[in-house]
Amino acid sequence: MTPHRWPLRVYYEDVDLAGIVYYANYLRFVERARSEMIREVGIDQAAMRRDGSVFAVRRVEADYLRPARYDDELVVETALADVMGARFMLDQTVLRDGERLFAARVQIVCIGLDGRPRRLPDAITRMAVLSSP
Amino acid sequence: MTPHRWPLRVYYEDVDLAGIVYYANYLRFVERARSEMIREVGIDQAAMRRDGSVFAVRRVEADYLRPARYDDELVVETALADVMGARFMLDQTVLRDGERLFAARVQIVCIGLDGRPRRLPDAITRMAVLSSP
Amino acid sequence: MTPHRWPLRVYYEDVDLAGIVYYANYLRFVERARSEMIREVGIDQAAMRRDGSVFAVRRVEADYLRPARYDDELVVETALADVMGARFMLDQTVLRDGERLFAARVQIVCIGLDGRPRRLPDAITRMAVLSSP
Amino acid sequence: MTPHRWPLRVYYEDVDLAGIVYYANYLRFVERARSEMIREVGIDQAAMRRDGSVFAVRRVEADYLRPARYDDELVVETALADVMGARFMLDQTVLRDGERLFAARVQIVCIGLDGRPRRLPDAITRMAVLSSP
Repeated sequence: MTPHRWPLRVYYEDVDLAGIVYYANYLRFVERARSEMIREVGIDQAAMRRDGSVFAVRRVEADYLRPARYDDELVVETALADVMGARFMLDQTVLRDGERLFAARVQIVCIGLDGRPRRLPDAITRMAVLSSP
Repeated sequence: MTPHRWPLRVYYEDVDLAGIVYYANYLRFVERARSEMIREVGIDQAAMRRDGSVFAVRRVEADYLRPARYDDELVVETALADVMGARFMLDQTVLRDGERLFAARVQIVCIGLDGRPRRLPDAITRMAVLSSP
Repeated sequence: MTPHRWPLRVYYEDVDLAGIVYYANYLRFVERARSEMIREVGIDQAAMRRDGSVFAVRRVEADYLRPARYDDELVVETALADVMGARFMLDQTVLRDGERLFAARVQIVCIGLDGRPRRLPDAITRMAVLSSP
Repeated sequence: MTPHRWPLRVYYEDVDLAGIVYYANYLRFVERARSEMIREVGIDQAAMRRDGSVFAVRRVEADYLRPARYDDELVVETALADVMGARFMLDQTVLRDGERLFAARVQIVCIGLDGRPRRLPDAITRMAVLSSP
């Protein structure tokens, strides 16, 4: 399965005084891309929320490879890496002209409003089947 | 009545590539100071929220006088300017060594979860009495 | 002259615990739209910066009319309101399905790295001529 | 060596619509705490920057253990975990009433404006000696 691709532009709000993207903001970038990927597989997060469940990040491993700069046009690639029970793992990469600037593995769970794990939406487990070799 | 004073430090997350505080972040600064002032007059915003009401900003007039810079120690001064029915107005100033960098008049209402105006907490109207000449 | 229109989506990072866009974030939204409008009239802000000049916001008057919510699709409209010497004024509106949620008048100057005003780029003054009746 | 401790309050800007701290914002919290720890060991990051060098994060491993909520009083603990050549590693934990909510290992380098690694400030390597068993 090809990774989901999502373009974004670096604005003033994103960079720090070194002129490069502030390290926490890559997590904002990849969250936007996740939201778009999740929407495209047919999951409505606003409806999920009304039903009392929500995706929550449990772990992030992030490598900052090269700095993104003000006004850069970037692409976020998102691929499902694994599904294990109530958790799934995404590999998310931020690229500029095909060069990897940032790479993260993000572990996500589905939880209820009580904070307890819930069954993943079918659309996620279906993706796992599609992306297995 | 003397204005409420609240200190803050400028961190990496706050500045843009010009090395100065990004213009939207002053609104974050003054909101933190408002939260502290409101706490000090005895209002518990977390409890208010559980009771179904919340403060909402209706209008901001903001003047950017001089830039705050990375690592600056700032003070936010907050004073009640006026109370009119279900609205109140705060004058909020960001200073560095007594010099005004940013000045805003912020109009705030209390609303219910339905978005409709609610009566202001007594602590706000009491402040108005105290601060009148 | 028709206003510049720029679409955006509301993500998790943008909303507060009331499920509505945090008030400072509208300033991020309109700054992104300004950057795109300025790019489209042919100004390269990254190049400007290398030449030692930068746009700086001097004043914002902002009305919060109705809340934008998580997952909303919004449009930012930006129109040149006035040019006066080294300053220009933009009217920026955030809409959802044609309904105005947020409206701001933003006063901007062009300054050098020393903080002193500089002559506006020609592309801005040309816009003023185009947009006059 | 006891870890550096730094208190912070959770404000409206920090939480998402689930009423819990947005995941990227923990990176802002721990960066503020790092800045304060670095200041306390005698390093002036503003002066470093004028000399053309800056700390940059190379890798983050972050575990989200329990959610922090609006209005929570938190403490960030920061301890030097290791120094290896031009890199150092910090363990940073966010706690509420002694309970661990977030734990990260952050790998940091010192780089010049050209992006190349530079020798770490002596104050960092001295800390390493102090914190070794």
